[in-house]
Amino acid sequence: MDIRVLSAGTALPGPPVSNAALAARFGMDTLWEQWVDAFIGTRHRHLALDLETGGQEHSLADLGTEAGREALARAEITPSEVDLVVLSTATPDALMPATVNVIADRLGIDGVTTLQLQAGCSGAVQALDTARQLLLAGRHRTALVLGGEVLARFYDLSADLGGLPPEQLVNFVLFGDGAGAAVLTTRDVPGAVSLVTSMTRLEGLGHEPGATLEWFGPVDRDSGRVPASEDYKAIERRVPLMAGATVDGLLDELDWKDSEVDYLLPPQLSGRMSDRISRHLADHHGLAAAHTVNCVDETGNNGNGLVYFQLERALDRLAEGDRALGVSIESSKWIRAGFALERR
Amino acid sequence: MDIRVLSAGTALPGPPVSNAALAARFGMDTLWEQWVDAFIGTRHRHLALDLETGGQEHSLADLGTEAGREALARAEITPSEVDLVVLSTATPDALMPATVNVIADRLGIDGVTTLQLQAGCSGAVQALDTARQLLLAGRHRTALVLGGEVLARFYDLSADLGGLPPEQLVNFVLFGDGAGAAVLTTRDVPGAVSLVTSMTRLEGLGHEPGATLEWFGPVDRDSGRVPASEDYKAIERRVPLMAGATVDGLLDELDWKDSEVDYLLPPQLSGRMSDRISRHLADHHGLAAAHTVNCVDETGNNGNGLVYFQLERALDRLAEGDRALGVSIESSKWIRAGFALERR
Repeated sequence: MDIRVLSAGTALPGPPVSNAALAARFGMDTLWEQWVDAFIGTRHRHLALDLETGGQEHSLADLGTEAGREALARAEITPSEVDLVVLSTATPDALMPATVNVIADRLGIDGVTTLQLQAGCSGAVQALDTARQLLLAGRHRTALVLGGEVLARFYDLSADLGGLPPEQLVNFVLFGDGAGAAVLTTRDVPGAVSLVTSMTRLEGLGHEPGATLEWFGPVDRDSGRVPASEDYKAIERRVPLMAGATVDGLLDELDWKDSEVDYLLPPQLSGRMSDRISRHLADHHGLAAAHTVNCVDETGNNGNGLVYFQLERALDRLAEGDRALGVSIESSKWIRAGFALERR
Repeated sequence: MDIRVLSAGTALPGPPVSNAALAARFGMDTLWEQWVDAFIGTRHRHLALDLETGGQEHSLADLGTEAGREALARAEITPSEVDLVVLSTATPDALMPATVNVIADRLGIDGVTTLQLQAGCSGAVQALDTARQLLLAGRHRTALVLGGEVLARFYDLSADLGGLPPEQLVNFVLFGDGAGAAVLTTRDVPGAVSLVTSMTRLEGLGHEPGATLEWFGPVDRDSGRVPASEDYKAIERRVPLMAGATVDGLLDELDWKDSEVDYLLPPQLSGRMSDRISRHLADHHGLAAAHTVNCVDETGNNGNGLVYFQLERALDRLAEGDRALGVSIESSKWIRAGFALERR
């Protein structure tokens, strides 16, 4: 059975926040702005909070509902036709109720299976893969799959960026808020894009987490601990290799030649890292001819949302017979995940 | 294809904490203790924190690993045979990495699909149902399914229980920590217990959440807000009805007569509520002859762990040909979930 991707939809809070705007807000100079441009390569991001007041203006449920509504409208699917909803996120609005159920409620979806996956950067592919497998199992016919982040409670507007070590500094420029959605169906729709395969695979044994995210807000007031940490050296070293293994595995499973891949949806930590991984896949895994579908330099890294922003662009571009590979790598405990698309 | 439940395993932190011990710790009198016995019906619970020092002595990863190891040993399954791990919880140890990956790592499981579901009281059935559907889809053969809670960071040891309104007071006596696990396989094992069906269904449209759990620890220091809230009136009214609908739906789907159900694994909010629901199902849904498999009065409500404690007892008791129904109701946004077992 072919699982079709009928549509994608996305939602970003507020206007893009440029590096210049961040520099102005935190009292940083032009040199810093140039450092962000050159070493991070993310030009702007969108934030669910008001940078002046610190107030949170959008929740994940808000953004997920907006993206979901758009995806349903584009697929011409009514809420009552949806019989499975899967959301992935690292930053749900609350522990209970699960945000997926709030979104379903707002969209008027009820009486169906809803699942929420807790995951980092591989979460969107986990959600697409879970939905695809559940559709293949035969009980469901139409899935709304969602992902996104609202990082507002981790954003410390009182931070002195000039005094932060680089690994904490990058969190202010790398990440953003946003959500996306896609509609998957078992229905045979000739000419639609097929999700021809998908996979997700933990490869963490013997490796420390490359990224962690704790419960508490900006900074733990008692201990001074910061909630987020990344091991960028480990990420730079391992992510291109894991992306390569994922591409090789997908090509092998599908019996596709590397030269037959028309579009690549690479892992997207930052603009610069994304370019670096795409080059690695072009140079060492035969994807030199594939067009790269990238957006992190515009949207910022909105985690579980990003794949849907790539998917939205890819669905527009894939012509009859075109093939695409998507790859996500999660450094938190080292998960590699991927999927393949073909319009047929 | 028959999905078999080869085993269950469970883990509880520390010794049981009696109502008398809680009364002593919080300076409450014998009258209070009697109120808990009579109106909550939970005799003790296990806590992952030291009641004297407030120190957290166990994480969800600790308890999940212990329960998972026990389930694998009982099933005589090695970690390398597991090709799918699904954990559900309302209270993961961190946002990233997902606790499921920490548990997999500790058990020596790698190179496989791992999923973590964010859910309240219906989560264990969501995890069993997801694993069962994924096994039915054909890609996986052996699943380790886990669930549990560690509520330590919500436990306010400085609380004045005498001054709390009843709806906050019950949180101190109702809940406990613990984890459970089960091994599911596609392998045909004659005489093993089959998970003959499972389902989970959001029924929240137009209903406010009956329970919420926020991010922050015991009390938000700025606003004085408490993290957990329950609408016990709504829970008392809706849960028995939703449990009844779930039983009817399962019997109907399987074409089983109510008189053919040998064991009932009822929803378990508290000892008293559990008894009340079991009586409702006996009186109004034909399950008068079914033996009830209950444990919440001994373990406390450890959320996503509870079903495995029931399952562990049920697997011991189900004889050849015996049938069981399990029901979980989540009030957070009103989800009803259920499953059926048969030894055959």
